[in-house]
Amino acid sequence: MSYRADTVVILGLGLIGGSLARALRASGFSRRFVGFGHREPSLRRGVELGVIDDFTLDLDAAIEQADILVLCTPTLVAANMLEHILPAVAQRDNGPVITDAASVKGNLLERAIAVAGTMPARLVLGHPIAGSERSGVEASSADLYRDHRVILTPVEGNEPDAVALVRAMWASTGAEVVEMTVADHDAVLAATSHLPHVLAYALVDALAQSPASDDIFRFAAGGFRDFTRIASSDPAMWRDIAIANRSALLDAIDSFSAHLAQLREAVAAQDADLLFDTFSAAKKARDEFTALLSQRSTPTPGEP
Amino acid sequence: MSYRADTVVILGLGLIGGSLARALRASGFSRRFVGFGHREPSLRRGVELGVIDDFTLDLDAAIEQADILVLCTPTLVAANMLEHILPAVAQRDNGPVITDAASVKGNLLERAIAVAGTMPARLVLGHPIAGSERSGVEASSADLYRDHRVILTPVEGNEPDAVALVRAMWASTGAEVVEMTVADHDAVLAATSHLPHVLAYALVDALAQSPASDDIFRFAAGGFRDFTRIASSDPAMWRDIAIANRSALLDAIDSFSAHLAQLREAVAAQDADLLFDTFSAAKKARDEFTALLSQRSTPTPGEP
Repeated sequence: MSYRADTVVILGLGLIGGSLARALRASGFSRRFVGFGHREPSLRRGVELGVIDDFTLDLDAAIEQADILVLCTPTLVAANMLEHILPAVAQRDNGPVITDAASVKGNLLERAIAVAGTMPARLVLGHPIAGSERSGVEASSADLYRDHRVILTPVEGNEPDAVALVRAMWASTGAEVVEMTVADHDAVLAATSHLPHVLAYALVDALAQSPASDDIFRFAAGGFRDFTRIASSDPAMWRDIAIANRSALLDAIDSFSAHLAQLREAVAAQDADLLFDTFSAAKKARDEFTALLSQRSTPTPGEP
Repeated sequence: MSYRADTVVILGLGLIGGSLARALRASGFSRRFVGFGHREPSLRRGVELGVIDDFTLDLDAAIEQADILVLCTPTLVAANMLEHILPAVAQRDNGPVITDAASVKGNLLERAIAVAGTMPARLVLGHPIAGSERSGVEASSADLYRDHRVILTPVEGNEPDAVALVRAMWASTGAEVVEMTVADHDAVLAATSHLPHVLAYALVDALAQSPASDDIFRFAAGGFRDFTRIASSDPAMWRDIAIANRSALLDAIDSFSAHLAQLREAVAAQDADLLFDTFSAAKKARDEFTALLSQRSTPTPGEP
């Protein structure tokens, strides 16, 4: 197996799927790209832009053509689509390798096992840590994944060749591909992305509901702007992520709340040493993170 | 009274005090600038840079020369200095107008009343909402306050001419001067600045202490960087602010925690509607804030 795929079918042609198709065409990984979705104008635009070669509104027709099937829909839609895709694929000999780009992996794993009885050997879950403040196929770029991380979460029972194909696909986009367990992926993303979004939403909502909200927003400045930027993210996407990653997100909220409660007690007790030690430890970790991040090339705005 | 002052004495010559001196010299508001502090090299550097004309290490000598005395020290140091300044000034006929640039006003008001028995008529508390990621007199700039807000918190018992002089001083730097009560100031700053710093410190500290911290920082991306930027702020400064603004900060933490607990319950119950409504309301408020902020000219990094 040469780890190339003739036809890649993108389910959900937006920024993520469109950028993947553009990158795979540019790298020569695949020859033909087919889009599937419900919004015909967006798919038609994808053809006009040369992102895909063809599209279909019929999921079975899409599955039929695929060597690789990539779910690039919102998180909960992806889980629901597995209910149709897995039985359809199970009836084909040598069916497509299936992968996805969703922000949470545990809910897809559970759903797949619920539908198929066991984890399908050729379903390899993955998550590119990339995004943009823009969305839609119009914003897609062949360079979106270059020098970004893609996390694959293969499980026992996955066909090694299927894992290798998905790995090769992402590697050809210029991404660094790493592997984690499903549980680790969901815990790490909960901590670094899902929890911060919930905190930012909670803070802005709390302030907006305050009787002093006019003054609050009038006198807020640069630090507040940076801190709350992610509260401008798409509410529907983050609702779905919060639901999909329920368990890991609750753990992350609880761990954070325990730390915040400790700091609250230190403020209440005017415990200067504990405040200084905690703030200093946080600053040290944050400064190390900044150094780590500056070694990578491109910052990643808007990633889920 | 022409609302100009012959000699301005800066207590604590760093970014804030140095920038004020530069701006007042540029505007012609004052003729002479004297620095007071404990670190002679920094004061000497201020003279070399032309920020101040002279300096003294003797607080009484500093007070003696002042038409306006501006406390530009850290928050808790300013409170402690009032213990010396207020009795010294009380012995002078027509003593200087005293003001400050600290991030919290309630603790200074309390201390002043504790020391002087009543609020001194010529002590006018204030807070410029400006800052920089750099610090020290080397980083000072005559433009630091241009188009930024300065909040004055005059109280009953303040001499109107003293308030007018402090207002004129800040106006001459190009700042927009507004008035608030001490309680409102401290509540608004707790909400927009002090609470976000505590949240960022709590989050980064929680993640750094997690067993998965290596992976967490390895896979964190742009959104996390923005969200945690303020956790790289000076731990000593924020310890002091947390102690000085104890009461308002505790209120802000409690209000935030109640909102977070609500969101936690919504995640636990997978209450899609509540999550969507809360995230949407927050996004709307955040987008309005962005629009408000973009009408102002300069962003304000690093402000306390």
